[in-house]
Amino acid sequence: MRLTPRDNTFFDLLAESAGHLVTGSNILAQILGADNGDRKKLVKQMSEIEHKGDEATHAIIKRLNSSFVTPFDRDDIYNLASALDDCLDYMDEAAERIVLYKINELPDRVEDQVEILRRMAELTATAMPRLRSMSELHDYWVEINRLENQADKAYRKLLSHMFDEISDPIELMKLREVVEVLEKAADAFEKTANFVETIAVKEA
Amino acid sequence: MRLTPRDNTFFDLLAESAGHLVTGSNILAQILGADNGDRKKLVKQMSEIEHKGDEATHAIIKRLNSSFVTPFDRDDIYNLASALDDCLDYMDEAAERIVLYKINELPDRVEDQVEILRRMAELTATAMPRLRSMSELHDYWVEINRLENQADKAYRKLLSHMFDEISDPIELMKLREVVEVLEKAADAFEKTANFVETIAVKEA
Amino acid sequence: MRLTPRDNTFFDLLAESAGHLVTGSNILAQILGADNGDRKKLVKQMSEIEHKGDEATHAIIKRLNSSFVTPFDRDDIYNLASALDDCLDYMDEAAERIVLYKINELPDRVEDQVEILRRMAELTATAMPRLRSMSELHDYWVEINRLENQADKAYRKLLSHMFDEISDPIELMKLREVVEVLEKAADAFEKTANFVETIAVKEA
Repeated sequence: MRLTPRDNTFFDLLAESAGHLVTGSNILAQILGADNGDRKKLVKQMSEIEHKGDEATHAIIKRLNSSFVTPFDRDDIYNLASALDDCLDYMDEAAERIVLYKINELPDRVEDQVEILRRMAELTATAMPRLRSMSELHDYWVEINRLENQADKAYRKLLSHMFDEISDPIELMKLREVVEVLEKAADAFEKTANFVETIAVKEA
Repeated sequence: MRLTPRDNTFFDLLAESAGHLVTGSNILAQILGADNGDRKKLVKQMSEIEHKGDEATHAIIKRLNSSFVTPFDRDDIYNLASALDDCLDYMDEAAERIVLYKINELPDRVEDQVEILRRMAELTATAMPRLRSMSELHDYWVEINRLENQADKAYRKLLSHMFDEISDPIELMKLREVVEVLEKAADAFEKTANFVETIAVKEA
Repeated sequence: MRLTPRDNTFFDLLAESAGHLVTGSNILAQILGADNGDRKKLVKQMSEIEHKGDEATHAIIKRLNSSFVTPFDRDDIYNLASALDDCLDYMDEAAERIVLYKINELPDRVEDQVEILRRMAELTATAMPRLRSMSELHDYWVEINRLENQADKAYRKLLSHMFDEISDPIELMKLREVVEVLEKAADAFEKTANFVETIAVKEA
């Protein structure tokens, strides 16, 4: 085997970081169906997860900068950790905006966006531990790219629908922001997969 | 000669990528003058060009990661390819929003924005093949920087004008988005030129 | 001593770049309290500072690319210089939007945002010269991170307040943009501090 993972902590930290994405995307899905009282509690939970994610990212980068020997290219780990962090940040931002703007009714298709994010989070969490052996990663990035295309279509339909149907401009501004941040989350998942592909191609 | 381009495919792929920018910017200009029926066809053409651009970028990055020897710094080619990709993405996004939001009338100055993008695309497409010999690149990045300043001024005038003249907030939101994405396209062209300058300075 | 700064110009240029942040943040604070006539003059001053900042960044990057030996990692200096540049760009953009959109009355909490930016700018300008000796930097990045959290809270309160209180959607759009750009400036200061931490950890 060509690859000898020289610092296993990286793999553990990346897996931990991806684990927070699953929790975060599940909380986000719960927020959509919850009433205002529960939403506030859920947003608090989300914020704690986001904080844990920040700590994991920070631990990765600190370890990266102080370690003389790392598995893979230093920049690639840095990019991967940052992309994972972005996924969670955007999901947290979406959750928070929903509560901050007191949005009662979200268009149905927002659920489609969040459902795609949940699947992306699960796939990402399953893929991260495989970086150790560099096996079975191809299907992961292909599937994430497929999901991102699907997210993109859902997003465009949603935009078109919203601008057609919602006549209250302030309501539209609020929703526009939420769906945009959700789209950015999907983009961040795709970026994450691209960095995994980069690492895999270099190691091949 | 100091530089021996060791993998000519990079130059061909970068030139191909820049070629798509010219096609894309021309389609964008046509969209402005077209009626709704033609716009949909043009947006579909744009989307195909954007897809080809994605493939070229992907081919560059894949080749970059698997090649042991590359001309120039690996990061610089990566940055350049990503910046070229961004130019097309933003032009595609602008085209799509115009159709998605069913915008009938665009302020005149949007044409100025797009005209600048067309000139930037042409200059970029002319410059890319010169990376091979590293000659006559200075004028390219100076001119792109000049055009970006011009785009910036056009953008600000447009914003001021729009917020003064358009009283329908939803119409304003739609147009605000289109002109912002066009401004981001101009910024991406400038970034592209900055990466070319970086490469040129290192090779000097 | 492990570190021998081999090219002192970098330190001078970084300090110069950070110095412009202090001037810029002070002009921004003045703009909030000024009437429309004075605002235009102040925006012009801001634009000149922003231009000087651009030149300093350009000088750093050019020197970076042409120098064979640099203190620290080349990428780290590049990232740091770009982050410093972003701080000023966002402050300039905020100043300009206030005048462009003819915003007469800004919510009180915008002053809190700008006050935090001023303190961030001062801390950053004090920290940059310490890169030479790599001493007393820890408190700087801890404090910047604390201030960024504070800015984040101020921003969210402001958003919630604005969407509750402002009923004119176009006025809301204008203010939304200004406070968003100010938040981006705070984020850029945090990024700057993160890059300084990266450099410090590597040198430790």
